[in-house]
Amino acid sequence: MKIKLPEVTVYRLALYLRTLEKLSQKGRNLVRSEELAELCGVSAAQLRKDLSFIGAFGVRGVGYHVRGLEKEIKRILGRDKIWHLALGGLNEMGKALITETRLAKRGFRFVAAFDWREEWVGQVIQEVYVYSLEQMPYIVKKSEIDIGVITLAGKEAEEMAERMSQAGIKAILNLGPDPLEFKKEGLILRNADLTLPFDLLAFALSQG
Amino acid sequence: MKIKLPEVTVYRLALYLRTLEKLSQKGRNLVRSEELAELCGVSAAQLRKDLSFIGAFGVRGVGYHVRGLEKEIKRILGRDKIWHLALGGLNEMGKALITETRLAKRGFRFVAAFDWREEWVGQVIQEVYVYSLEQMPYIVKKSEIDIGVITLAGKEAEEMAERMSQAGIKAILNLGPDPLEFKKEGLILRNADLTLPFDLLAFALSQG
Repeated sequence: MKIKLPEVTVYRLALYLRTLEKLSQKGRNLVRSEELAELCGVSAAQLRKDLSFIGAFGVRGVGYHVRGLEKEIKRILGRDKIWHLALGGLNEMGKALITETRLAKRGFRFVAAFDWREEWVGQVIQEVYVYSLEQMPYIVKKSEIDIGVITLAGKEAEEMAERMSQAGIKAILNLGPDPLEFKKEGLILRNADLTLPFDLLAFALSQG
Repeated sequence: MKIKLPEVTVYRLALYLRTLEKLSQKGRNLVRSEELAELCGVSAAQLRKDLSFIGAFGVRGVGYHVRGLEKEIKRILGRDKIWHLALGGLNEMGKALITETRLAKRGFRFVAAFDWREEWVGQVIQEVYVYSLEQMPYIVKKSEIDIGVITLAGKEAEEMAERMSQAGIKAILNLGPDPLEFKKEGLILRNADLTLPFDLLAFALSQG
């Protein structure tokens, strides 16, 4: 089943999921919408609206089943699968992502890296092998790569996105400093902003 | 003026701001709520509600003034200042953040790093000097550090947060893999999740 959800709703569902995972680890079975909403920083009405939208309804006077709701949101967000990631271009941020344990824990597994510099090809970073760009089409197929991750800037980022798309990668996450705008049929491209958590903190500090 | 805003509203304001900055760079003077909402992936009603909440009203039949609205959201989010950041602990993610040009561009400037390992103290990474933990209270005061950034895991993250708070840092952004839960009067602590953009992409891919 396909569900059309605006990005801010997906963002809230991802927030709910993180809180449900914590509750679940603590062994909680049930949670009322008021408590869950407060833990997530949204209104209870908003939470109930979001959850009823994805077909999850709490029981009056009882609340939601923590594990059931966790599983359902995971399914909707596509977090019930293992995604295969490839890094395009080895800079500081790229290497940091490969070594990021949270991604692997959440089903986002780096299985390959690509670089155009000969001195990098053949190296292994945290069990991830670095291939040349020429090997990309073959590796993308063989390792069933779902998502290409780019942390490069400017022209390099554009070229890497182009190569990834040509190699058959269907989704690209650009975490580099420059938003990519290229469009290609069947390609999902997202520019994500690593500075967002800093904004949220600056706001909290300004209110200080 | 203090404004109470839920985190998801602050998140949306940060999204609006990014789009306004792009429009402003392209030389646009006016934008209608429908267009701005579509570019941001929210409903026009939601956008107008958020903006009226912060006291920004469009002109009927004309829309919003791009630069005026950009300036106003910047002010509300605390993005009209330069924030001084200190990194606590030098791992891959920490070094990657120090070299991240987007943060500096948006007013988040790393002015110091701290590490307990002697071999790191005295080194300079992208113009940021690494100090020992003993020097922290002095440097925090001298360099007027606003935000401590932690990318460490487990016990190391906890200890670093404790040291930063003792040294007089009033806000900590934990970007490490383990959420910190310690509470202290007057301390703003946020656990931010670097895996969120991956979730948003996985959702888009699941919808295939």
